[in-house]
Amino acid sequence: MAYRETEKMRNRKAEARKRIIECTQQRVAEGGFRNAPITGVAECAGVATGTIYRHFDSKEDLFAEIFRIATQREVDKVAEALQGEGNAVVRLERALRQFAVRSLRGPTMAWSLIAEPVDPKVEEERLRFRRAYAELFERAIEEGIAEGSLPQQQANQSSTCLVGAIAESLVGPLSPSVVDADSLAGNNDSHPLVDSIICFCMQGLTGNRR
Amino acid sequence: MAYRETEKMRNRKAEARKRIIECTQQRVAEGGFRNAPITGVAECAGVATGTIYRHFDSKEDLFAEIFRIATQREVDKVAEALQGEGNAVVRLERALRQFAVRSLRGPTMAWSLIAEPVDPKVEEERLRFRRAYAELFERAIEEGIAEGSLPQQQANQSSTCLVGAIAESLVGPLSPSVVDADSLAGNNDSHPLVDSIICFCMQGLTGNRR
Repeated sequence: MAYRETEKMRNRKAEARKRIIECTQQRVAEGGFRNAPITGVAECAGVATGTIYRHFDSKEDLFAEIFRIATQREVDKVAEALQGEGNAVVRLERALRQFAVRSLRGPTMAWSLIAEPVDPKVEEERLRFRRAYAELFERAIEEGIAEGSLPQQQANQSSTCLVGAIAESLVGPLSPSVVDADSLAGNNDSHPLVDSIICFCMQGLTGNRR
Repeated sequence: MAYRETEKMRNRKAEARKRIIECTQQRVAEGGFRNAPITGVAECAGVATGTIYRHFDSKEDLFAEIFRIATQREVDKVAEALQGEGNAVVRLERALRQFAVRSLRGPTMAWSLIAEPVDPKVEEERLRFRRAYAELFERAIEEGIAEGSLPQQQANQSSTCLVGAIAESLVGPLSPSVVDADSLAGNNDSHPLVDSIICFCMQGLTGNRR
């Protein structure tokens, strides 16, 4: 009997944690980390603010967790796009385009993940995840060099150039002061802004005019 | 007499502020913002910690000021390099190379300016200054398109790609856990790491294999 009580409590705790995370994600998606004060998250999740601190040591830890969950989803998407059909050039272009298009379709969340000034704990995660993206690109570039679809180059350098180019070139367009989500996202994955970023990146990788 | 006293006090205050800034810069150059706690800065500057807060509202404001001073210096250097001899391609390559080489020569400060997780106030400045770099590059790219040394492209997009590519590709090599300043800096402005970054950037801009 005591055991079942404990399990029930454990489930209830897990559910509260899930709701806290969902509410924070929703708030960030709507208005960035600045739109997710603990009081607002607690209200949305239907818990006391003190409950949040039983799940996360601080607001910064909660934000870092939200950042990890949302960014890991994007990293997985990039990994998936890099594993499809085609040579390395085709796969890299597909992954970069998908990243840009997905960002423009969820501009507020994307901006918060890429650039919103938050705090050092989120910054540490940004550095870590940018390495994760770069490692995925690096592997694909090495495959491209091996199969001859890409010219000889320092794959580890080109990969970080890709990560920087695509992230930085989205910061402005995604910025809350600029964003007009509908016009940004375009239709059928085609948009001049995305084309322009992809052009730079692919020329950087291949050295071939597009 | 009262007036002269006031002027003397004003000078003394200005001197203290100057020393606080110099000491913070020195500390950051030696070990990043994390190496510049207020107590350490106060000791170095020969003032009480309370004095620092008479000059800056908070540690974050002091750090933001240090960031602005050090980054403006680099922005000015880029502007200078972009204004020299040669067509836009030559000038852009010179500016990018100089930025990379200068970063590698002062790796700790460069890493702190580009990537060290600090706090939102410094992050806000980072966003602002990255715009400043991008605007300089954008103008040069537009000149290149006008004179025919660069192919038609969205100068505002290519410029942010440049900023992102060069900054992000330096983050890893500059990182305190990696840095071997002597081996990074190379000699006579020639270094494989820099060459590799410049190659990607110039191919991205020109579409010509290097």
